[in-house]
Amino acid sequence: MPQSGRVKTVFEVGSVKLFFMSDPTPSSPDLNLRVRAYLMGLQQRIVAAVSELDGGSFVLDAWRKEPHETLQGDGITQILEGGAIFERAGCGFSHVRGPALPPSATHNRPELSGAPFEAMGVSLVFHPRNPYVPIVHMNVRMLWATPLGSPGASSTAGTAGSRPAPVAWFGGGMDLTPCYGFAEDAVAFHRSCKDALTPFGAELYPRFKQWCDEYFFLKHRGEARGIGGIFFDDFCELGLERSFEMMQSVGDSFLGAYLPIVHKRHTQAYGERERAHQLYRRGRYVEFNLVWDRGTHFGLQSGGRTESILLSMPPLVSWSYQQVNPPGSPEAALLTDFLPRRDWI
Amino acid sequence: MPQSGRVKTVFEVGSVKLFFMSDPTPSSPDLNLRVRAYLMGLQQRIVAAVSELDGGSFVLDAWRKEPHETLQGDGITQILEGGAIFERAGCGFSHVRGPALPPSATHNRPELSGAPFEAMGVSLVFHPRNPYVPIVHMNVRMLWATPLGSPGASSTAGTAGSRPAPVAWFGGGMDLTPCYGFAEDAVAFHRSCKDALTPFGAELYPRFKQWCDEYFFLKHRGEARGIGGIFFDDFCELGLERSFEMMQSVGDSFLGAYLPIVHKRHTQAYGERERAHQLYRRGRYVEFNLVWDRGTHFGLQSGGRTESILLSMPPLVSWSYQQVNPPGSPEAALLTDFLPRRDWI
Repeated sequence: MPQSGRVKTVFEVGSVKLFFMSDPTPSSPDLNLRVRAYLMGLQQRIVAAVSELDGGSFVLDAWRKEPHETLQGDGITQILEGGAIFERAGCGFSHVRGPALPPSATHNRPELSGAPFEAMGVSLVFHPRNPYVPIVHMNVRMLWATPLGSPGASSTAGTAGSRPAPVAWFGGGMDLTPCYGFAEDAVAFHRSCKDALTPFGAELYPRFKQWCDEYFFLKHRGEARGIGGIFFDDFCELGLERSFEMMQSVGDSFLGAYLPIVHKRHTQAYGERERAHQLYRRGRYVEFNLVWDRGTHFGLQSGGRTESILLSMPPLVSWSYQQVNPPGSPEAALLTDFLPRRDWI
Repeated sequence: MPQSGRVKTVFEVGSVKLFFMSDPTPSSPDLNLRVRAYLMGLQQRIVAAVSELDGGSFVLDAWRKEPHETLQGDGITQILEGGAIFERAGCGFSHVRGPALPPSATHNRPELSGAPFEAMGVSLVFHPRNPYVPIVHMNVRMLWATPLGSPGASSTAGTAGSRPAPVAWFGGGMDLTPCYGFAEDAVAFHRSCKDALTPFGAELYPRFKQWCDEYFFLKHRGEARGIGGIFFDDFCELGLERSFEMMQSVGDSFLGAYLPIVHKRHTQAYGERERAHQLYRRGRYVEFNLVWDRGTHFGLQSGGRTESILLSMPPLVSWSYQQVNPPGSPEAALLTDFLPRRDWI
């Protein structure tokens, strides 16, 4: 797989052919190529599995930023709307380069604020039709930044000797947002998360689980978005190669973590009450993503591709004033028994 | 009306009695009382007129912040849900005091960042059921801030001589967001806006019209929220009394600007296509308010009352990927003929 010199890789996705030319850096000969290949393959595997389960087809939209835009790069947005099982299921790959990392993206690395960067990732949010099937979110990504003041920061030319090694890290995770809580689903999902991480260190799951609880929290409601999962960012402490393996383990575990839950719940009968509750709970998803999610904000405010960023939005959502759930109802149990932080395993 | 000394004012709103004790400052003997009385009266007039037109009743929710909360104060939220004409119509009065103005609220007055403040206002957003009736937003508000470093900044006690005059200003405006554009409605609405401002200076309407166009703009879509109206902030250039009169003129003009449009459009027949377009366009409203609106963000992130702030959210909203309107359709005309900036009068 690793090659020296300039490498051209071609991917065929449906009828669209995408290729990528890279001039590998000395420090990691072809890491960006291998990460890109992994991510595009992961997207295809997920889309194929979900499409087969649902019976509906994903629209495939391969895009490329225009030369005059601030962000440069390309991506593939795939989305299934109006499916039998999934009312809206978006799964996007993107690979962008920008002139300056915003402060929001360098929370833990202020020294990289304003540095030229490159980011690639797969991000998905699935909104099922049946209110008993939980919403799911998964993301795996890699970022590179070239610290300002280093010789290569403002130029891609130059000899290998004068070019600084960019700083790189991984991020991602997955989390579940049920409208109706089922303890066995939460336990199974968290077990998959844990199993994906344990080979890389026993302490990772509890750390990333807590991070997820803290990140996916609606401060203005004092309410978690869902029953959590795992979340990590700025991760390279195992070294780049091993950290990449960990990210792959998370990505690879997604289908096994989520599809069994879909299988179990998607035929469960429901009525207007459950549907109304689902539309109302989806409002919380919108509030989190548009008010608090750093990735969404960064994307929308920095010139990202709006329709691809907002594939996380639900197909249909409602708001109503001070909705109160009857005590003892399954709707109330979501708030009392599932959203408060719990150790599921 | 003006009185000297300590004043107690009692308002009865439905079955709820609210009162307000004030120790007037020397510079404006009872301005805060008079502004509060005006705002509560305005809310009642609007709610009564809309309730009569719709036939449905507003829920009245009088609230008060708990002593342990960062923001202190009270308010009255009134909201009509599931009405014959209005699917969701919220109109809120609030009056809060906080220890420190956030930078977002002192954009044009950085010297007041972090200053103790008091704010009161009426804010409304109406979401009609019929897609041909436009969404409307109106807000009038007054803010006081006591500059840091002045003797009275951290205390309300002290003699009249040592107490600094707080800095005060007005803000507000109104704007219209149609799903289907009608030039005559846009012209009539803008004419009402202009008529409200002209007695206070011929240059105010064009200035506030432009400000509105700039403020209510979805940068991530390159799209205006609606056909505009007027918006102003940090306004005290006519002196406090005359500026208050201008704010009243804006508030007083609201019903006359909006209700004739509702009357004209609410019986216009529509079908599934128009309803789908309406739900989709409402998504833009959500995007603007949650991603860009400074007031919403400030409120949600600083401990404001979530359910009252989010009365602007539509009752039902949809998102779908890259919706394209047929060329020449009225849905397409909204984007080509109405949302781009225009001088309507």
